[in-house]
Amino acid sequence: MSITTPDGFVAAGVAAGIKASGALDLALLATDDGRPVPTAATFTQNLACAAPVQVSREHMAANGGRATAVVVSSGNANAATGDRGRADAVAMCRLAADGLGVAEDQVLVCSTGLIGIPLPMAPIEAGIPRLVAARAGGPDAGADAARGILTTDSGRKEVLVTYPTFTVAGMAKGAGMLAPNMATMLAFLTTDAAVEPGPLADLLRSAVADSFNSMTVDGCTSTNDTVVLMASGRAGLSDPNVVATAVTEACADLAGQMAADAEGSSRIFQVQVVGARSDGEAHRAARKVADSLLVKCSINGADPYWGRVASELGSAGVEFIMDRLTIAYGGTTVCRGGIEVAHDHAAVADHMAGPLVSIECGLGLADGTGVVMGVELGYGYIDENRTTS
Amino acid sequence: MSITTPDGFVAAGVAAGIKASGALDLALLATDDGRPVPTAATFTQNLACAAPVQVSREHMAANGGRATAVVVSSGNANAATGDRGRADAVAMCRLAADGLGVAEDQVLVCSTGLIGIPLPMAPIEAGIPRLVAARAGGPDAGADAARGILTTDSGRKEVLVTYPTFTVAGMAKGAGMLAPNMATMLAFLTTDAAVEPGPLADLLRSAVADSFNSMTVDGCTSTNDTVVLMASGRAGLSDPNVVATAVTEACADLAGQMAADAEGSSRIFQVQVVGARSDGEAHRAARKVADSLLVKCSINGADPYWGRVASELGSAGVEFIMDRLTIAYGGTTVCRGGIEVAHDHAAVADHMAGPLVSIECGLGLADGTGVVMGVELGYGYIDENRTTS
Repeated sequence: MSITTPDGFVAAGVAAGIKASGALDLALLATDDGRPVPTAATFTQNLACAAPVQVSREHMAANGGRATAVVVSSGNANAATGDRGRADAVAMCRLAADGLGVAEDQVLVCSTGLIGIPLPMAPIEAGIPRLVAARAGGPDAGADAARGILTTDSGRKEVLVTYPTFTVAGMAKGAGMLAPNMATMLAFLTTDAAVEPGPLADLLRSAVADSFNSMTVDGCTSTNDTVVLMASGRAGLSDPNVVATAVTEACADLAGQMAADAEGSSRIFQVQVVGARSDGEAHRAARKVADSLLVKCSINGADPYWGRVASELGSAGVEFIMDRLTIAYGGTTVCRGGIEVAHDHAAVADHMAGPLVSIECGLGLADGTGVVMGVELGYGYIDENRTTS
Repeated sequence: MSITTPDGFVAAGVAAGIKASGALDLALLATDDGRPVPTAATFTQNLACAAPVQVSREHMAANGGRATAVVVSSGNANAATGDRGRADAVAMCRLAADGLGVAEDQVLVCSTGLIGIPLPMAPIEAGIPRLVAARAGGPDAGADAARGILTTDSGRKEVLVTYPTFTVAGMAKGAGMLAPNMATMLAFLTTDAAVEPGPLADLLRSAVADSFNSMTVDGCTSTNDTVVLMASGRAGLSDPNVVATAVTEACADLAGQMAADAEGSSRIFQVQVVGARSDGEAHRAARKVADSLLVKCSINGADPYWGRVASELGSAGVEFIMDRLTIAYGGTTVCRGGIEVAHDHAAVADHMAGPLVSIECGLGLADGTGVVMGVELGYGYIDENRTTS
């Protein structure tokens, strides 16, 4: 499987020399006939967004939701690089567009890596023509592209979702808590379903909310996060609701691979909130718990101190009535009606020592539900992030 | 100096046996004649607030802004304790009120310590009559009270601000990042100035905003935070604006003592934001930087990676234009116009190795300013917080 499995796409990955290691550091995803197809993109909400995000946003606004290609560099984020950074991002698009013989605004651009350092343009100017020339269908080209977008990831992250009438494929980078200097999340999805730009944008937004936006490493918002979905239409018209389900499934799978990539050095936990006034409030409350330093430390220590969870829910900015609160760890209720209840301490201890801790919170107000995945806070996070050198 | 220095107040501290260590764990602050005086109080905004916060709020609503005493227990927060906790908090007020011969709602109550464990009432029922009997003026009684409110603090925190026509005294507990299970911030202030309840409440709110609310340890909001200010009026009428200045000075001094108490194991940093659209936006942006895990790790590693600061400012939810951004460390500008500028790297390294790191951010938009103090994230925080046992 690869990003080129759905009919209509080619890909490539080359080592241009941005990374000192010599690893692949340029990637291309393009339509196989050089014609634009319906394309949707979501970008980081950070106002300090990187130059490639600014340029891709402009291109999406100009191209009417139809693009031909995405070019990606890894090893340098091209963020906090000012006018020069914007010119460099435009140059990346132009180099790819020239090679493909298409208009500049039909090419989107992404970068990931360190912030504040100008992009090394000499290797990129030499590399992009090679990248364009190398484009091909098939799993090898797709695998090269999936490798070319990585930074600290332990390996490629790819997904294929097959439905009777169409397929969705994806590739992503993002390695949980490891080295958040490079914690940008990039994901690229292709489908051969035929969906118009408007519905495509709607279904991508919804899929991202239910997958990538329901994971939190440290509450920080990257300058470069981007998700792109291209629809070739080769498989013919499909019900956008069915495509939405498949795209959400693909995104959730990639998000799970990101979480799993953090597991080597970090424990993951899931915060589920039910009974909130709305799904939005449930999600906000779950995120407040998942981002809490005290809760993250508790997970590191396998400590079932539920008072911390209650305190975070109470300060999440959502409706909350302490006397209605229920908290369970791995299905064992420890708090009901806002106070501790007799429970099986050994069962809770067993659960908290396991690989995935589940914290289930009931607010007892209405029907809103939300789930957010979080990552423990241990020495490893500090070791990785105290210096960039 | 002590909380009883302003004319009109008595205090006491006793060891009731709540703390296994035998340290002082009950404290009383009261008027010396048992009559109510104008009193202002601010409480945590956490909706999971502790029973004593609920009861003190009710008493403040019922007593018209005039109280006679505050009774404080340390070692147990009486939080997440349900109806029983509320009854226990009321009982603490009643025991003190009976001893003082005043109405129950003239007594406020505070507790600090672990969450979710019922208050041990036997020692408290025996202790409060002893506490009331021990009340006295003078520095020893004040010192006992200042000790009786402590948990993990390394020592008493007291302040005295003397103006020509009145004085303000204060005592507080709260030890920066250490053991945030007990990270509640409590502060009690007395003055002999005459200020009516309405202006007293206004000036306390403003003083707290400019002191305690401009410090952040881990972004968590305690269930028990309380600040109380009592004004005996013995020194006669004073300009509320002058009293406001003195109370702010006292609160800022106590907040500084809390920060200093964290310094043994933690480095402190100050985030100053200027040029924001408003003071509120500047404060919000400064807090986003001070609460950032990545920035906190950078302080631990003395790493001047300003891209992290820019990224936090860009996602703080305030107006932000990257191209106008300036960032300096200890007065050395590292970023101007949103990009890195040539600077003295040795000067920055020297500053970041020092005891108090200063991060100065200019947004270049308008005149809003704000300052927030933060605490580094290192192994010490994890060691203290991964388990409660």
